[in-house]
Amino acid sequence: MGSENKIIAKQVLVVGLGLIGGSFAKALKISGVCQTVLGSTRSAETLEKAIANGVIDAGDNDLAAIAAKLEEGDVVLIATPTLSVPDKLAVLKDALMRGVIVTDAASVKGDLAHKAQELFGRLPPHLVLGHPIAGSEQSGIDAVNEDLYKHHCVILTPTQETNPAALTKVQQLWESVGALVSQMGIDDHDRVLAATSHLPHVLAYALVDALAKRSEQKDIFKYAAGGFRDFTRIAGSDPQMWHDIVIANRDALLAALDTFDKSLAELRTAIDSENSQRLLEIFSDAKTARDKFAEQLANRQTEK
Amino acid sequence: MGSENKIIAKQVLVVGLGLIGGSFAKALKISGVCQTVLGSTRSAETLEKAIANGVIDAGDNDLAAIAAKLEEGDVVLIATPTLSVPDKLAVLKDALMRGVIVTDAASVKGDLAHKAQELFGRLPPHLVLGHPIAGSEQSGIDAVNEDLYKHHCVILTPTQETNPAALTKVQQLWESVGALVSQMGIDDHDRVLAATSHLPHVLAYALVDALAKRSEQKDIFKYAAGGFRDFTRIAGSDPQMWHDIVIANRDALLAALDTFDKSLAELRTAIDSENSQRLLEIFSDAKTARDKFAEQLANRQTEK
Repeated sequence: MGSENKIIAKQVLVVGLGLIGGSFAKALKISGVCQTVLGSTRSAETLEKAIANGVIDAGDNDLAAIAAKLEEGDVVLIATPTLSVPDKLAVLKDALMRGVIVTDAASVKGDLAHKAQELFGRLPPHLVLGHPIAGSEQSGIDAVNEDLYKHHCVILTPTQETNPAALTKVQQLWESVGALVSQMGIDDHDRVLAATSHLPHVLAYALVDALAKRSEQKDIFKYAAGGFRDFTRIAGSDPQMWHDIVIANRDALLAALDTFDKSLAELRTAIDSENSQRLLEIFSDAKTARDKFAEQLANRQTEK
Repeated sequence: MGSENKIIAKQVLVVGLGLIGGSFAKALKISGVCQTVLGSTRSAETLEKAIANGVIDAGDNDLAAIAAKLEEGDVVLIATPTLSVPDKLAVLKDALMRGVIVTDAASVKGDLAHKAQELFGRLPPHLVLGHPIAGSEQSGIDAVNEDLYKHHCVILTPTQETNPAALTKVQQLWESVGALVSQMGIDDHDRVLAATSHLPHVLAYALVDALAKRSEQKDIFKYAAGGFRDFTRIAGSDPQMWHDIVIANRDALLAALDTFDKSLAELRTAIDSENSQRLLEIFSDAKTARDKFAEQLANRQTEK
């Protein structure tokens, strides 16, 4: 890389300084591709901590006030809970209209695109919707990690309305923090994420819920082992965040649940009828597919 | 502990030298609580490797031949695939009848107890059924790990027929390799394991199966991240082993599936109707239960 990093954007404003926004801000500051990294968050304490910890250069709890100082070509990343993004977009309307580029990190894109269309009458050219596929069960400013995006995928979902220069700039910012950026259609994104992320979270929540209800609960958890811990890790995620995601991606998630139900029903039938051949086929095929996926992921995240 | 370990059993024979049997044998050799650790396995190559790697002192591919040399008070651990255990028990009948203690490591106890009753007309007093809650997606002699059982639970499922001295000896052997031993009824064991282990495996297999079938499969796995990897890790387990387990524990597993289906249906309804309050309740309760479990597990496995 070298020390002469090209400036991609003079000012970048990160709205929401939790794990996702804070990690992006801190990594950007380290990368040196912006002159100033700004932050906005509702909590005065978080803002102070973000400045003290070197996550941002400066900030303001008042989003409208700090947005008023942005200029054409500056970039805003909205990294607040999924269902709160439209409210932030509304506050950023003036900035968007004078050529400030706005992107986001919400896990669902269709619902947000729909609400942006309602807000603005169309998808503004300088609004570049995106989604970093990263995170953990940790959250908040204390979980900030400048390496969070290294070797992780970021999906941008441009439309025909998207300004190409704005798209390029957002892509370059993500690449400057180590992410692997690709582009997908909005609906494709939501279907893929419903299947690989939202559905597994729902299954993990349902499993833990089912077990916690049982009378022998104490014993049940006492004898659960490492496989159960790994399987249910995602049920330790932030409830409000997952509430927002399942509401925002309801239709794609319900469709993914239907597909899963069919596979589970088939497996149940094979167990019920002790159909050894079918059980071995399903288990072997799943093991092959899963091992292949794990290998691909390991290749991508060589430093993880 | 000190160096003066008391001898618990003169000879211990481990049948099946995969991850479970091999790790027990090697840990026993290190613990010094047996004079001789013997092994039996069908593969001549595995037997050679087990001796060369210090997993066992000596062995024989012919189970009947090596069992004939065992004496009253010696112990046999059967660590072969779940559905093959009754065949091994049949070969060990003479040994059992002359006071050799036989235990096992199968993941399901009810089915085995039933088959043992068919074989012997009753549950022999020196047959101590057990189940170490340990393992990994690795398998085979090359995966052998002498620390596998440290801080892991082993459940023994004695009945009124079980000889107390035999039970004590099996418990002491497991404790000598670092395991935390407890006792449960056979049906309780199978219900708890169905819920915490067999059901999660079935869900992981069904999820990977559902995703692998979809036309956009390539993209689906490309964008899956660490949460998906952890959630599906158990779908990378040995298909034959899980085939045996779901067949052997069919009834308890189907009952656990029914309980899960109810929780999933309730969650689906809450998503479909965008019932925010109910969604937050379910997600929060699950997070609380899951975090508590993870903490208990971490306390138990302080060295992991």
